[in-house]
Amino acid sequence: MHGAQKMIDPGKGWVTHITLEPPSLKDNSADGDRLCRALAKEFNVGRVEAALPPVRQLPALLREHRYSLRCLVFKDHERAQLIHATAGNDQSKIAGLAVDLGTSRVVIRLIDLEARQTLGESSFDNRQAAVGPDVLARIHHADEPHGVEQLQRMAVKAVNAGAEDLCRKNNLSLENIHLFCVAGNTAMSHLFAGLPVHWMIREPYIPAVNRFGVVPAAELGLSAASNAHVVILPNVGSYFGGDLISGILDTGLHEQEETSILVDVGTNAEVVLGNRDWLMACAGAAGPALEGGMSRMGTTAAPGVIDRVRIDPQTRQFDLHTIDDLPPTGICGSGVIDLAAQLFRAGMIDIRGKLLAEACADHLSMDNQMARLTIVPQSRSGTGSDLRISQADLDSLVRSKAAMYTILETITAAMGLSLNDLQTFFVAGTFGSLIDPRSAITIGMMPDLPLGRYRSMGNTSLGGAVRVLTERDAMDQIENIREKITYLELNVNQDFMNRFSAAKFIPHTDKSKFPSC
Amino acid sequence: MHGAQKMIDPGKGWVTHITLEPPSLKDNSADGDRLCRALAKEFNVGRVEAALPPVRQLPALLREHRYSLRCLVFKDHERAQLIHATAGNDQSKIAGLAVDLGTSRVVIRLIDLEARQTLGESSFDNRQAAVGPDVLARIHHADEPHGVEQLQRMAVKAVNAGAEDLCRKNNLSLENIHLFCVAGNTAMSHLFAGLPVHWMIREPYIPAVNRFGVVPAAELGLSAASNAHVVILPNVGSYFGGDLISGILDTGLHEQEETSILVDVGTNAEVVLGNRDWLMACAGAAGPALEGGMSRMGTTAAPGVIDRVRIDPQTRQFDLHTIDDLPPTGICGSGVIDLAAQLFRAGMIDIRGKLLAEACADHLSMDNQMARLTIVPQSRSGTGSDLRISQADLDSLVRSKAAMYTILETITAAMGLSLNDLQTFFVAGTFGSLIDPRSAITIGMMPDLPLGRYRSMGNTSLGGAVRVLTERDAMDQIENIREKITYLELNVNQDFMNRFSAAKFIPHTDKSKFPSC
Repeated sequence: MHGAQKMIDPGKGWVTHITLEPPSLKDNSADGDRLCRALAKEFNVGRVEAALPPVRQLPALLREHRYSLRCLVFKDHERAQLIHATAGNDQSKIAGLAVDLGTSRVVIRLIDLEARQTLGESSFDNRQAAVGPDVLARIHHADEPHGVEQLQRMAVKAVNAGAEDLCRKNNLSLENIHLFCVAGNTAMSHLFAGLPVHWMIREPYIPAVNRFGVVPAAELGLSAASNAHVVILPNVGSYFGGDLISGILDTGLHEQEETSILVDVGTNAEVVLGNRDWLMACAGAAGPALEGGMSRMGTTAAPGVIDRVRIDPQTRQFDLHTIDDLPPTGICGSGVIDLAAQLFRAGMIDIRGKLLAEACADHLSMDNQMARLTIVPQSRSGTGSDLRISQADLDSLVRSKAAMYTILETITAAMGLSLNDLQTFFVAGTFGSLIDPRSAITIGMMPDLPLGRYRSMGNTSLGGAVRVLTERDAMDQIENIREKITYLELNVNQDFMNRFSAAKFIPHTDKSKFPSC
Repeated sequence: MHGAQKMIDPGKGWVTHITLEPPSLKDNSADGDRLCRALAKEFNVGRVEAALPPVRQLPALLREHRYSLRCLVFKDHERAQLIHATAGNDQSKIAGLAVDLGTSRVVIRLIDLEARQTLGESSFDNRQAAVGPDVLARIHHADEPHGVEQLQRMAVKAVNAGAEDLCRKNNLSLENIHLFCVAGNTAMSHLFAGLPVHWMIREPYIPAVNRFGVVPAAELGLSAASNAHVVILPNVGSYFGGDLISGILDTGLHEQEETSILVDVGTNAEVVLGNRDWLMACAGAAGPALEGGMSRMGTTAAPGVIDRVRIDPQTRQFDLHTIDDLPPTGICGSGVIDLAAQLFRAGMIDIRGKLLAEACADHLSMDNQMARLTIVPQSRSGTGSDLRISQADLDSLVRSKAAMYTILETITAAMGLSLNDLQTFFVAGTFGSLIDPRSAITIGMMPDLPLGRYRSMGNTSLGGAVRVLTERDAMDQIENIREKITYLELNVNQDFMNRFSAAKFIPHTDKSKFPSC
C-alpha cells in the first residue's frame, strides 16, 4: 500500500518513550513542567505545552512507573503539545486517524502512531450529500438557519461511524484514537470545523480562516480519547484547500530540485507545478467547459467496481478487472480512462470519441436516440442489469481530458516551460485506484512523456494526512508549501479555447505531440 | 481604592479597536488570519492565535461593520490569543474577574477590561472550608474518591455565585466576563484546576504543575462568556504559590534598584526580600512556633468588623472604628495589631503581653481561669454579646509577632543585610484592611524603620491578578519573577530560637532595636 510504503521514511514519529530524573529537594520543579521540559528536549522544540487533562493523572503515573512514560506529542508549525501520557510499559495502541474529507467520499486510515503503520482503511459517503451533491450546494445550504451546524454534524457523524467501524475491525475502540488529521478542500474543512462558508464563493472569495490550529476533538463532536486533538490542514485560499497541500506534501514535489507536476484527478482537476524553489497551482474549475467533467467519469472505487479494462484489438473481447474480483457493479475513474483508451486502440471509437457502430457490433444499442455501449451484459453484472456507457459519457470524457491537457499546457507555458521539461509527473486521484499513465497518454489526457517519469500516487490527500500523523517535520513542510505557493487564475481567453478545441480529439489534432501513440 | 490607583499606570490593556484593510482579489487572506496578523502587529507579538469559537462570527461581523472591530486578546508569557471579537461600535462591557483564591476567604474584583477600571469587589468564604479549615485538611480530603473533583466544584461554584452577584450589582451578566485571573497558593490553584495535590505535602514536595497555562473557563465549570479563558497564576513550588508571585508583581519590588521587602500577613506570614537583580522568598510555616498564629489573630474584614483601635492613655477609653461604621461584630487582623499596640501604650498589658488587672479595671473579667478583656460591651455590640479578647489570644499574638520579626531578621541576615538596609517595607494582607505600621512597630512585629519607608498594600495577591488583566507586560513580569526567585528554607536552629525568644517581648528585649518606642 502506498501509505505503508511512505512510512518507512526516516525520521521519528510523535510517540516517544521518556524517563525523567526523579524530583528531589534540590530539583523540585513540578511533574508537568518536568515532563514538558524533557519532551521539549526530545522533540527539539523551545517548549512543549500540556493542557490540564493529560496532567491530571501525571503525578500518580510517574510515581507508579518509576518516572518512565510513553507520550504522544504533536506540534503544528508553532505549538508543541502533550496529547497523551501513559505508563512506559503500557501496551495499548496509540492510534491516529487520517481523514481525506472529500465532497462526495470520505476516506479514513487508522494509523498506529507508535509503529507508524497503517492498521486499516475504509471509505464511505460524505453524509452531507443528503443536502446537495457538490460544494456549491453545501455552501448554499449553510446559509439556512443552523445550516453550518447541521453540515458540521453530518460530516462528524460520518467520521465517527466510520472510525468506530474501523476500530472494531482492528480490535480497538475509539478511545485509542488520540489524534486526527483532516485534509479537505477549503469548504469541506470549514464545514467540518463549523465555520461559515458564505463569503467563500463571493468575490473576493475569502474563507473564514487559512489556519485552523489544533482543535480538541470533543469541541467538534468527534468521538475519541478524552484529550484527543484534531489537525485540520490549512488552506491557501477558498480554491486551494488543505487536501491539495497535503497532496503536495505527499509527493515531495516541493523538495525536488527538478521541476515536476502533480495532477489530482478528483471532482476537479487540480494541478501543481514546481520544485523546491517555487510552486504554481491552478484549479481546474476554469470556466464552463471544464465543469463537472471529471466527476462524471465514473463511480468511486469500491468492491465490484471495474478499475482496469483491456480490449483485445482483434476479437474486441473485453477483459475487465474489478476490485476484489467481485461481479462488476460499476466503473471507476481509472476504469473509464482505460476503457476509452482501449476502445480507441480497438477502433471502436473515432478520434472525436464517437462510438463506431460496425466495430462495436453487439456491444452497441440505441436508447432514446442515444448510442450506448454495453460493457458488461446483465448475465455477468453484479447489479442485475447491463453496465453501459453512453455517447454522452464519452463526449464528457473527451471534454474533460481536453480540459486537463489544456490546463497542463497552459500552466507550463505560463512558467516558460514545455511539458517535456517535467521530470516527474505525479498522478494522484481520490478515485481509489490508480490511473494507468499509458491509457491517459493514449487518449491525450496527459502528455506523451516517457512512462518512467510518471508516478501514480493514489490518494495523496490522505497520504499527506498520514505523514502529518507520523512525521515530525510534516507540519513545517506544510507551512513551507503554503508560503511558497502561487495561485494561477486560469485566464480562459481565446488562446486557451483554441488549445482546448485542438485537444478535443484523441489523442490530439497535433499528432506530433503524441509520437508514441 | 488600591486597585483603581494602580490602573492609571502607563501601558495598554488587552482590549483594542482595530480596523482591517478589506480583502481583495490581490490580498485574499482569510478573515481570521487577516485579523490575527493585524492583532499581532498591534500587540507587538510574533503571532496571535484564534480558536474556532471567536472566528465563527467573524466573517459576518467584519462585513457588517466595515472591518472595524473591538477585540480582546490575552497573552501569557508564550501565547497570544484572541478571546473575543465584537463590532467596533459595540458598547457592551468586556469584563474580567480577578480572583484572590484564599484558603478561607475568596476575594473577587470585577474589572472593565477596556476602561481598565474596577467595577466592583466582593468576598465570600471558600466553600471548601466545609471539608476542612486549612490547606492540609483539603489535601487529605483530595485523597478520597472524587475528592479533587468535589473540591474543584466547590471552589468554582463559589466563584460562580460571587461573580453572578457582583455582575448583577453592576447591571452586567456573567456573559460579560471574558477573562479570569486566579491567584492562589499552590494547593488552592491545583484544586481549582482539578489537579492532584497528594504529593505536594510529601517529600520532596512536588506539585503537579508550575504553570497552568490559559485554560477555557468552560473546562473548569466557570460560568462566563462562551470563549472566556482563565489564567491561573503559576507557582514556584508547593510552598510558593501564584498568590505570592502576584503580590510581588503588585508591589513592583522586582523592578526596583534598592532592596525592599514584602510581608504578606495572611494565614501564614510570607516574606520576599529583593530588588531587580535577585529575589529571596521565605515561607512563614517554619516550625511549630510559628504555626497558625497569624490566622488566629482576628476575623476576616467585613462590615461591622473593628479595623482600627485607639485607646486614650489617660482615660483608657476605647475609640473603635468598624468597617462601614456598623455596630461591632468582631475584630480583624489589623484591629488586633492596633489593639495590642494601644493596650501596651496605655499600660494595660506588660512587655510579655500579659493583661494588667489594675490598668484594665472594668474591662477585665475571668472566665475558666482565663483573663479576658472586654473590647465592646454587650450593649453596644452588633452580636448581642460582649466582644472580648483572651489572654490566650494575646499570647498567640506575641508568639506570632515574635516569629514574624525573627523571620525578618533571619532572611535579611542571610543576605548579609540589616533591617535598616530595607528601603521600602511593603505590608500586604488579605485581611482586607490595612495594617498600621506604627502599631506593628510598637508591638515589635515589624522593624523600627522611618514610617515613610512603610507602604501598606492591602490585598497584593488580588492586585497582581488585576494587573494581569489590565497590563500587557504583567505575565512577562510574572515569568521574570518566577525565574529570579530563590526559596530560602528557614533553618529553625538554636540561633533562630534565641532570636525568637528575644522577640517575645513588646517590643523586644533589646530596646535599642526600637529606638522610637
